[in-house]
Amino acid sequence: MSRIVCGVDLGGTQTKIGIVDEQGEIILKRIIETRVGDRSETIVSRIAETISSVIKEVNVDRDTVLGVGIGSPGSIDRENGVVLFSPNFPNWRNMELKRRIEEKTGLKTFLENDANAFILGEWAFGEHAGCDHMIGITLGTGIGGGVIAAGKLLIGADGFGGELGHIIVEPDGPTCGCGSHGCVESIASAPSIGRLAKEMRKRFPNSKMFESGPQPSTKQVFQAATQGDEAARLVLERVYRALSLAIGNYIHIFNPRYVVLGGGVSRAGEPLLNGIRKCVERFTMSSFKGTYEIILSQLFEDAGIKGAASIVFYKFS
Amino acid sequence: MSRIVCGVDLGGTQTKIGIVDEQGEIILKRIIETRVGDRSETIVSRIAETISSVIKEVNVDRDTVLGVGIGSPGSIDRENGVVLFSPNFPNWRNMELKRRIEEKTGLKTFLENDANAFILGEWAFGEHAGCDHMIGITLGTGIGGGVIAAGKLLIGADGFGGELGHIIVEPDGPTCGCGSHGCVESIASAPSIGRLAKEMRKRFPNSKMFESGPQPSTKQVFQAATQGDEAARLVLERVYRALSLAIGNYIHIFNPRYVVLGGGVSRAGEPLLNGIRKCVERFTMSSFKGTYEIILSQLFEDAGIKGAASIVFYKFS
Repeated sequence: MSRIVCGVDLGGTQTKIGIVDEQGEIILKRIIETRVGDRSETIVSRIAETISSVIKEVNVDRDTVLGVGIGSPGSIDRENGVVLFSPNFPNWRNMELKRRIEEKTGLKTFLENDANAFILGEWAFGEHAGCDHMIGITLGTGIGGGVIAAGKLLIGADGFGGELGHIIVEPDGPTCGCGSHGCVESIASAPSIGRLAKEMRKRFPNSKMFESGPQPSTKQVFQAATQGDEAARLVLERVYRALSLAIGNYIHIFNPRYVVLGGGVSRAGEPLLNGIRKCVERFTMSSFKGTYEIILSQLFEDAGIKGAASIVFYKFS
Repeated sequence: MSRIVCGVDLGGTQTKIGIVDEQGEIILKRIIETRVGDRSETIVSRIAETISSVIKEVNVDRDTVLGVGIGSPGSIDRENGVVLFSPNFPNWRNMELKRRIEEKTGLKTFLENDANAFILGEWAFGEHAGCDHMIGITLGTGIGGGVIAAGKLLIGADGFGGELGHIIVEPDGPTCGCGSHGCVESIASAPSIGRLAKEMRKRFPNSKMFESGPQPSTKQVFQAATQGDEAARLVLERVYRALSLAIGNYIHIFNPRYVVLGGGVSRAGEPLLNGIRKCVERFTMSSFKGTYEIILSQLFEDAGIKGAASIVFYKFS
């Protein structure tokens, strides 16, 4: 039988746990609630119990289980498997997730940040699996980045590499959560798109974006733009420009074959993709023409579990 | 005896050729003229003859000569050792430098672009030789970049990676030679600094920068700033901001230990370094504090030969 991995996609409201085989098929999947208010001991125990139970359920020889891969948002220490800080669990500080899960399950456990897990998922199971030169960008509450360069995950001297969301695209732009100004995250993350939309209210009080309230969702902004709404178009123009400038920079730096977009905002699909593709050319030297493709992840809602599982497949590759 | 390499630093007015040993010592050095107007055959023959003559002169066993490393500006095809295009030799197109030098010298020859050769020189023989996470930036007629990530030279899917000079730092800034706007090269290369200085003439006709003419050199701009000249200070503030924003981006992306500056503009030394160091903090997340150092290359005028030789030492490492 093919070797299998348990992938854990750690989220602030729910955690997805699944058994993934070497072909990237999810054999079994469980979703458990992870309430931010719960004690960390409770959360970790529930995760460990679910891991053990799904592994029992698939009923395989223990030797075929390569290990557990956990994709976590926030700042991690991958060497020691510690979540240093997570936006999803504000009361977690230096949480030794690897050690605790290993103790409870007896399985070798590996931790990686969620954006790196995302690109590892693409490298292992995505549309262009096996490509040695890929960049992943997760567009969600924040903007995360992961880079495969020459077949290796880029991690940097201290493991902090790949912070693609904090490339500065508007030097005099909005203050970013990181303290800097005009990072791509401060313009193109889901909350930033919402904020830009809200700022349009004075000028465009009758915009379709505000049909169900003063604070439109990303989805509502894209919908309004599709319907020809001028305010929504202006918001998205700025978002596309920010993303394209950032992606142009990544292309000059990495000369990747694929730039893969994932995360909640990427569900906007074709309009987003077309907006970026058109704009990226303006920010890219002509010698790069034809060398790259900007695409949407095809792993959809299973990207998290598959990415988490890929952490382990990558380790053993 | 230690193995040796012949390093060739190909320049538009002169080419430096030297024998470098494994410790990075230059055993013998020759400088030959390379006139842009000369036929390519003449230039290549002169280089090959000089290589053969210096190797003969050091009088070593042929087996100790690892090969020839050539650092070339412009666009190269490293696999085939072809200079696709060089700003220094406008009439070179797809010049098969590797094949020609190998035929004439009988020595294995490797070609790399000069910015990559620069960071390989730092990796092999610089102040922090052996460091696996380093970025090199050459500040000259253009701005070049080279990246060592996890001990490997970053080259990308088609060998175009590491184009650090074309990071956009002023989205509405000056047109760059590459066709884009506000690349760091369009503000902080030597010709760009000269252009920014010249633009100050109307507002500051009595600036010290213009004491010897309307078109000050980079050196004159730095000198004037040291003497408290306001116009020069304004020019350099913009240059420091551009470089710092770019370097801040590289730090987020690569999490390097060292950012090494080289090239003609870096001869400005401490003022440049201090200007950048102060400004980079504004553009960098606090979690990166203390993880990086911005330094000047200590290889000085031999950086070219040593970098070129390092191409070969890296190949055999």
